[in-house]
Amino acid sequence: MTGGEQASYTLRDIAVRFGGEVIGDPQTRVTQVASLENATPDAVAFLANERYLQQLRMTRAGAVILGSALRDETPLPRIVCDNPYAYFARVSALLNPPRAPVPGAHASAVVDGSAALEADVEIGALAVVGRNATIGAGSIVGPGCIIGDEAVLGRAVRLYPNVTIYHGCRVGDRTIVHAGAVIGADGFGIAMSDERWVKIPQIGRVVIGVDVEIGANTTIDRGAIDDTIIEDGVKLDNQIQVGHNVRIGAHTAIAACVGIAGSSRVGRYCRIGGASGIAGHLSIADHVEISAHTLITKSIDRPGTYTGAYPFDANSDWRRNAAQLRHLGELADRVRVLEKKLAAKERSQS
Amino acid sequence: MTGGEQASYTLRDIAVRFGGEVIGDPQTRVTQVASLENATPDAVAFLANERYLQQLRMTRAGAVILGSALRDETPLPRIVCDNPYAYFARVSALLNPPRAPVPGAHASAVVDGSAALEADVEIGALAVVGRNATIGAGSIVGPGCIIGDEAVLGRAVRLYPNVTIYHGCRVGDRTIVHAGAVIGADGFGIAMSDERWVKIPQIGRVVIGVDVEIGANTTIDRGAIDDTIIEDGVKLDNQIQVGHNVRIGAHTAIAACVGIAGSSRVGRYCRIGGASGIAGHLSIADHVEISAHTLITKSIDRPGTYTGAYPFDANSDWRRNAAQLRHLGELADRVRVLEKKLAAKERSQS
Amino acid sequence: MTGGEQASYTLRDIAVRFGGEVIGDPQTRVTQVASLENATPDAVAFLANERYLQQLRMTRAGAVILGSALRDETPLPRIVCDNPYAYFARVSALLNPPRAPVPGAHASAVVDGSAALEADVEIGALAVVGRNATIGAGSIVGPGCIIGDEAVLGRAVRLYPNVTIYHGCRVGDRTIVHAGAVIGADGFGIAMSDERWVKIPQIGRVVIGVDVEIGANTTIDRGAIDDTIIEDGVKLDNQIQVGHNVRIGAHTAIAACVGIAGSSRVGRYCRIGGASGIAGHLSIADHVEISAHTLITKSIDRPGTYTGAYPFDANSDWRRNAAQLRHLGELADRVRVLEKKLAAKERSQS
Repeated sequence: MTGGEQASYTLRDIAVRFGGEVIGDPQTRVTQVASLENATPDAVAFLANERYLQQLRMTRAGAVILGSALRDETPLPRIVCDNPYAYFARVSALLNPPRAPVPGAHASAVVDGSAALEADVEIGALAVVGRNATIGAGSIVGPGCIIGDEAVLGRAVRLYPNVTIYHGCRVGDRTIVHAGAVIGADGFGIAMSDERWVKIPQIGRVVIGVDVEIGANTTIDRGAIDDTIIEDGVKLDNQIQVGHNVRIGAHTAIAACVGIAGSSRVGRYCRIGGASGIAGHLSIADHVEISAHTLITKSIDRPGTYTGAYPFDANSDWRRNAAQLRHLGELADRVRVLEKKLAAKERSQS
Repeated sequence: MTGGEQASYTLRDIAVRFGGEVIGDPQTRVTQVASLENATPDAVAFLANERYLQQLRMTRAGAVILGSALRDETPLPRIVCDNPYAYFARVSALLNPPRAPVPGAHASAVVDGSAALEADVEIGALAVVGRNATIGAGSIVGPGCIIGDEAVLGRAVRLYPNVTIYHGCRVGDRTIVHAGAVIGADGFGIAMSDERWVKIPQIGRVVIGVDVEIGANTTIDRGAIDDTIIEDGVKLDNQIQVGHNVRIGAHTAIAACVGIAGSSRVGRYCRIGGASGIAGHLSIADHVEISAHTLITKSIDRPGTYTGAYPFDANSDWRRNAAQLRHLGELADRVRVLEKKLAAKERSQS
Repeated sequence: MTGGEQASYTLRDIAVRFGGEVIGDPQTRVTQVASLENATPDAVAFLANERYLQQLRMTRAGAVILGSALRDETPLPRIVCDNPYAYFARVSALLNPPRAPVPGAHASAVVDGSAALEADVEIGALAVVGRNATIGAGSIVGPGCIIGDEAVLGRAVRLYPNVTIYHGCRVGDRTIVHAGAVIGADGFGIAMSDERWVKIPQIGRVVIGVDVEIGANTTIDRGAIDDTIIEDGVKLDNQIQVGHNVRIGAHTAIAACVGIAGSSRVGRYCRIGGASGIAGHLSIADHVEISAHTLITKSIDRPGTYTGAYPFDANSDWRRNAAQLRHLGELADRVRVLEKKLAAKERSQS
């Protein structure tokens, strides 16, 4: 949301930037993206999936982005391309650029005199920037954010409101952090001694790469001794918990509500479904997909999709089946007995 | 908590307002609700479940609310009614009214000059109200809340501290939002292209109906293109994640830690148990109940209760059974073989 | 992170404080703890697990803490002790003491005139302290925290930024609360009446003992009528949800993302794995361990380990097995039929 007037582009403008083939009037001008269902004539919609063909027929969009297999499914002005979803993402980004920072610190912000702010940094109302913190050019620190002492934000970082960055943590260029996220709280390090828990000071940091996005109320704990590391291009949805000394490989995308326990390493280009979990001290290879609601309890050393969700059912069916689940070992034993008896019988009759 | 002196009512006063039959002295006066276990003589307790009959016998409460089946189980002054739990809720609300707003913005709050505040709005200390935001009469914005530009709050809205409402989102009349909730962060919209994730700008809003309650640290993402919608009377507990473009039907209640993935629709009057999940792009009918820890992976088109939690067990038993679970397909095959062999035997012997 | 110069100790100093046997030069001086892998010669590392023996051989640490079974596995100066992990925790705490409060309220904080602050209390920038709140000596309230009216913090409490403590809640001495935690939001108390939810005012408090630690974005709801209670020495990781009227017994440790539903009681010295859940109104004995991703649906009255996670598998294997899971009751019936048939056959042949 820019607050300014909306830019507009012709299909030709767009194809010059992003490629693809224009079919129909290349002067068709669009000012916004829209869903097929709710588009108005000044908008461009997209179709990435055949199941929405019916909506394509009904749409009032002024233009459509779609793949070559569907190129003839509409008479509307259109751009045909290889990856309509990614193409659409680029068009939307063109029409909805992130707003530029309003340089300077709001009068109500509390910025320590020792903090180093590069050019064109915006510090929102009632934000706090700690001692010796560093903020790179063009970054926006939202209202109510707390940036700890010695923290380092790169350039063009965007923090939405009420983000907390603990002391000493680092956030790379162009990284976006949504409201309520907490970067660098103490990891869960405790040792039992004489029937009391002794706290282990958490002296590592969180180090976040460039082009990362971190969702609302996600928490990433600082390392116990060494650092917790989020590599470049990682995308984390909301309410994810990343334990201390975890390393998440570049370009991995993790859906909401996932928990990753301490010291586990997740590879590059992984995709992890919502509310999954990874136990501590494991290693997950690159290009692994983990389904939703799956708990990973052993390291995974090869790409592939891994799943461990209980299939849901009508409660009465679930009840009957789940009751048997508690006797599954016994059932297997009974089948083994049957097999033996039958084999014995067959031998005795042969 | 009103901070003022506590009101008091006689049982007669209460029955005049809310119905029910008074048994015993109607002039019995109560100033507070209490549990049977900890009640004092100036308090009214309630009994909705026979399993607490023993506590009823021991209670020091001055009066009791209970159902007609249990009307003679106590000699205490009492109100007999159809739905003692709901009746109790009303009595408690009578004795514990929400506090009235203290009109005006705290001196430390940062309210943009373009924001439109109706009468009797309270803006707490160190809250921020953005450009062109609108806040309806009688609303309370708690300390530390951040209300984005162009956001619209209805009348008698109550935001507890440190709530973040992103730009353009709408909250209906009498809706309550608890601390740390984030309304309108970007949905998780990314497209893979050339081995990089491209962010899809999230240009929809969150639109929340009237009489909704949203728990602490719950997150509701803004729509990718169209809006995310929470209908009237929806009750969301803490730490719930609602993805972009979800629609939750009126009067649905969702327990803590549930995740609902993007574009799913939940019906009206549904009840969803804690830590359950609903995958994306599904449709759940009205009056569906989902048990705790259940992942819904297909649309549900009829009312009923649906379950998918793994039954817990002592670890050694679980271990034995879970090991077999990995061979269940094979076990089923072996049973099929046995059935065939036995059938063949029976045929050969007949 | 103290910001001051780093203290240093000889191995002899350390053994005098914490016991253990020094082998090698007792004048070896260390200034920090480190992992075996990344230690420098001024650091002391530890080894609690044989699987890191290889790292022990390679380490550049100046000294090592380890158990007696491994006492001869390194030529480095070392301290041999019974519980190297706990010993290490104590050494790390010695080398990394929590920072002392900087007494006084930051000029930007909003502290109500009726609040009672004991000596040496630090109130961070842009924090809010409500009416009649009480804060014990030596406590630190981080920037952006909101302390509600009538709340009571004990001595040497440490609140990290953006914590919300609702009105009337109590936090015991030396308790640590991490950023974004919400203590005392309303429990999820609603009653259905005439097809509408009626809210039940939540008039209890949250009462937290001494030496508790509460993770980032964890939420603990206030009691409906009586209080929610967290006993002494409880350790809660991030993003945990504790429902109203729960009681958690002393010295219990709970990993991240766990949810505990209303009115359940968890015993003392329990250990609960990540993303587990406990249904409402249950009672869990002392010394119970619950595995990760386990839903507890019945009370547990004896110590032991309880598990209920679905074992994950390659998706194709999971698919085959999970499909059978839906027919498990039927499969058990079929095995029973086979057993009967075979038994009948045996009888007829005998």
